Amino acid sequence: MIIAVDAMGGEYAPHEIVKGALKAAEEYKIAIALVGKKDILHILTAKNKRKLDITIVEAPEVIDDDESPIEAVANKPNSSIAVGIQLLKEGKAQAFVSAGSTGAVFFCAFMTLGRVEGIDRPAIGSIININVTNPFLLIDCGANPNCKPKHLLQFAQMGSIYAREIFQIPSPRVALLNNGEEEKKGNQLANDTYPVLKASGLNFVGNIEGQFLSQNKADVVVTDGFTGNIVLKTLEGMGDTFLNLRNVGQMLSRASHGESRAMLFDTSVGSLLKRIDYREAGGSCLLGLNGNVIIAHGRSRARAIKNAIGVAKRSVDRKVTEMIQQEDFSEPVVPATEEEET
Amino acid sequence: MIIAVDAMGGEYAPHEIVKGALKAAEEYKIAIALVGKKDILHILTAKNKRKLDITIVEAPEVIDDDESPIEAVANKPNSSIAVGIQLLKEGKAQAFVSAGSTGAVFFCAFMTLGRVEGIDRPAIGSIININVTNPFLLIDCGANPNCKPKHLLQFAQMGSIYAREIFQIPSPRVALLNNGEEEKKGNQLANDTYPVLKASGLNFVGNIEGQFLSQNKADVVVTDGFTGNIVLKTLEGMGDTFLNLRNVGQMLSRASHGESRAMLFDTSVGSLLKRIDYREAGGSCLLGLNGNVIIAHGRSRARAIKNAIGVAKRSVDRKVTEMIQQEDFSEPVVPATEEEET
Repeated sequence: MIIAVDAMGGEYAPHEIVKGALKAAEEYKIAIALVGKKDILHILTAKNKRKLDITIVEAPEVIDDDESPIEAVANKPNSSIAVGIQLLKEGKAQAFVSAGSTGAVFFCAFMTLGRVEGIDRPAIGSIININVTNPFLLIDCGANPNCKPKHLLQFAQMGSIYAREIFQIPSPRVALLNNGEEEKKGNQLANDTYPVLKASGLNFVGNIEGQFLSQNKADVVVTDGFTGNIVLKTLEGMGDTFLNLRNVGQMLSRASHGESRAMLFDTSVGSLLKRIDYREAGGSCLLGLNGNVIIAHGRSRARAIKNAIGVAKRSVDRKVTEMIQQEDFSEPVVPATEEEET
Repeated sequence: MIIAVDAMGGEYAPHEIVKGALKAAEEYKIAIALVGKKDILHILTAKNKRKLDITIVEAPEVIDDDESPIEAVANKPNSSIAVGIQLLKEGKAQAFVSAGSTGAVFFCAFMTLGRVEGIDRPAIGSIININVTNPFLLIDCGANPNCKPKHLLQFAQMGSIYAREIFQIPSPRVALLNNGEEEKKGNQLANDTYPVLKASGLNFVGNIEGQFLSQNKADVVVTDGFTGNIVLKTLEGMGDTFLNLRNVGQMLSRASHGESRAMLFDTSVGSLLKRIDYREAGGSCLLGLNGNVIIAHGRSRARAIKNAIGVAKRSVDRKVTEMIQQEDFSEPVVPATEEEET
C-alpha cells in the first residue's frame, strides 16, 4: 500500500507533515509518497529514508489556504495537491492525505477523480471526537451549503458505509441534525428529509439536537453543508477556548504554587483536555469520489498527521471507496403521510 | 418596578426559582411577583417576605417541558406562564421571567402581547458568554426555523437595539453567521441576506464563522432559528462536557493527591471553567413582542435566576421594548449587484 501525503499543506508544513509521515511509515509499515518541493523533502527525510519506505514526488507549486480553490487548482497544475491526487488517479497511490486547503483538495479531487455513479453531491465527512471513546461522523461539513433531501440521503448512505468500515460498527446509527427531537421539527429541508431517512433501510434513529452530539447517540450525523460547517467550526472554536483555558490554568498554577504543582495540574486535567483535541481525530474524508482522500486539520502537527494517515490506511484496508462504488443509491419509496393521503 | 417570575418553571422549580427571586429582590431592590401555586410559595417565602417586596400570584396549573406548547397554552389558561404574561399585558408587571418551556412562553407571549408593528417574526435572542468578558447575542435561537432575508434583517435590527441597551455598546457590531468569511459564501439565505445587512445602516461587520464566535468579533450574531438553535445547543452540550471534565479532574486529583491538592485544582481551573457556565449568562429574551420576556435556562439554579431577573430589570430600565416599538423596520434599498445590472 502506498499513501500519498501532501508535504506542503497545513500551517506546520513541511516539517511536522514529514515528521508525522515518517512516524506513520514506521508504525503502520506502509509506503509513503511525500509530495512537494524535492530539495527540502530530501533534507527532511535524509536521516530516515533508508530504514523506511519513503519516496519523494516533486511538486514545485504550493496552494495557499487563502487562495480561491477553483482559481488555485486551475492556475497551479503542479501543486502538491494536484500531483498527489494525480498519483491516486493513476493507481500509483491508494489514498491521499493533505492538511492543505479543504476547498482546493475537494475541487481538485472532484475534477480529477470524478463522482461515484449515483452520487449527485460528494460530501465532506468529519470525525468528531468530543466524546473520546465514541467518535461520530458529521456529514456534510461544507461541500454543499444548499441541499435537497436526496442529497442528505446520499450523505447518510455514504456515511453509514464509512462508519461501518472505519469505526467498525456493524449497523451505524444515523441521526438527522435538527432543532428538536420530534419528527415534525426543523426547517423545510429537515422536515422533508426525515421521512426519506426513515424509509431508507438505514439504521435511522431520528433527530439529534446539538446538546446531545457528545452523548454517543449516533455514529453518523447528517446535515447540509452550511449547518455542518458551522457546527464543526463552533466545536473547534470551543475546543480552542478550552485548550487555552488549560494553558491559562497552567500559568496560574505555576505562578501561585510553583513548578511541581503546575505539573500536577497538567497530569490531572491537562491530559483530559488534551484528549478532546480535535486536531488529533483523524480529520475529514471526502466521500462520493473515486478515491480515498483524507483532509487533516490545517493546524495538524506530526501526531495528527500520523493519525490521518492511519485513517487513510484503514480506508484502503477496508475498501471504503469500493464499497461506496458498489452501493445502490436509488431513492427509497417514501410512504405517503396522512396529510398527503387525504 | 415589578418583575413577574414564573415560580413553577424549570428543573429546580420552585425552590431554586424562589431562592433566586428573593436574592434578586434584595440585591436589585425591586418588587417581585412570584407566580405559581400559592400554598408552596407562601411556605418558601415565609422567612423573607416581610423584609422584601414580594407578592404571590396564584396560578394553579403548570406547563411541563414535554408538553406541546400550543396545546399546553390552549388547555391550561391558569398556568404560571399564562398568568405571568397576563400580568405584563395588564401593566401589573414590567417584565416576565421564566425558566419553563421556551416554546410555551414564546407562544403564550405571542398570543397575549402581540407583535411589535413592522415585525413579521418575533425571535429568540440568547446571550452567549463563551467569551466571558465579551458576551454576544445570538438571534434567532429557534423561533423561526425557516426565514427570508427580511426576517434576518429584523433580527439584526432588534438585536442591535438589545445589545446597545443591555451590553451598553453604542454601536453594536452585527455579523451574519456563515460557513465562510467571504461575501459570496453561504447557503441561499445567507447569500441573499448579506447585501440586505450591508445596506441596512447597521454596524454590519460581515460574515462570522463558528470558530470565531468566542473571539469577540461581533456583539450580535444573526442567523435563522434552525441554525441558531443547533449552534446554541451545541455550545451548551460542549459546556456540559467540560463541566463534567472539571468534576472528573477533581476526582482524579483528589484520589491521587489528597484533598488539599484537589482544592488547588478547583481554584486554578475550576473557577475558569465555572465562568463559562452558560446557565449563568442571563438567558434568552423574546424580541419583537409588546413586553419584556426573559427565558432563563431550564436547568437554572438560584444564581442563574437572579441573573435573568437582573437582565429583565435592565430591559425595563433601558426601555428595550419601547425602543423596539419606536424603530423603523422598513427594508433598506439594496443596491443592484453587478450581475443584476448586466
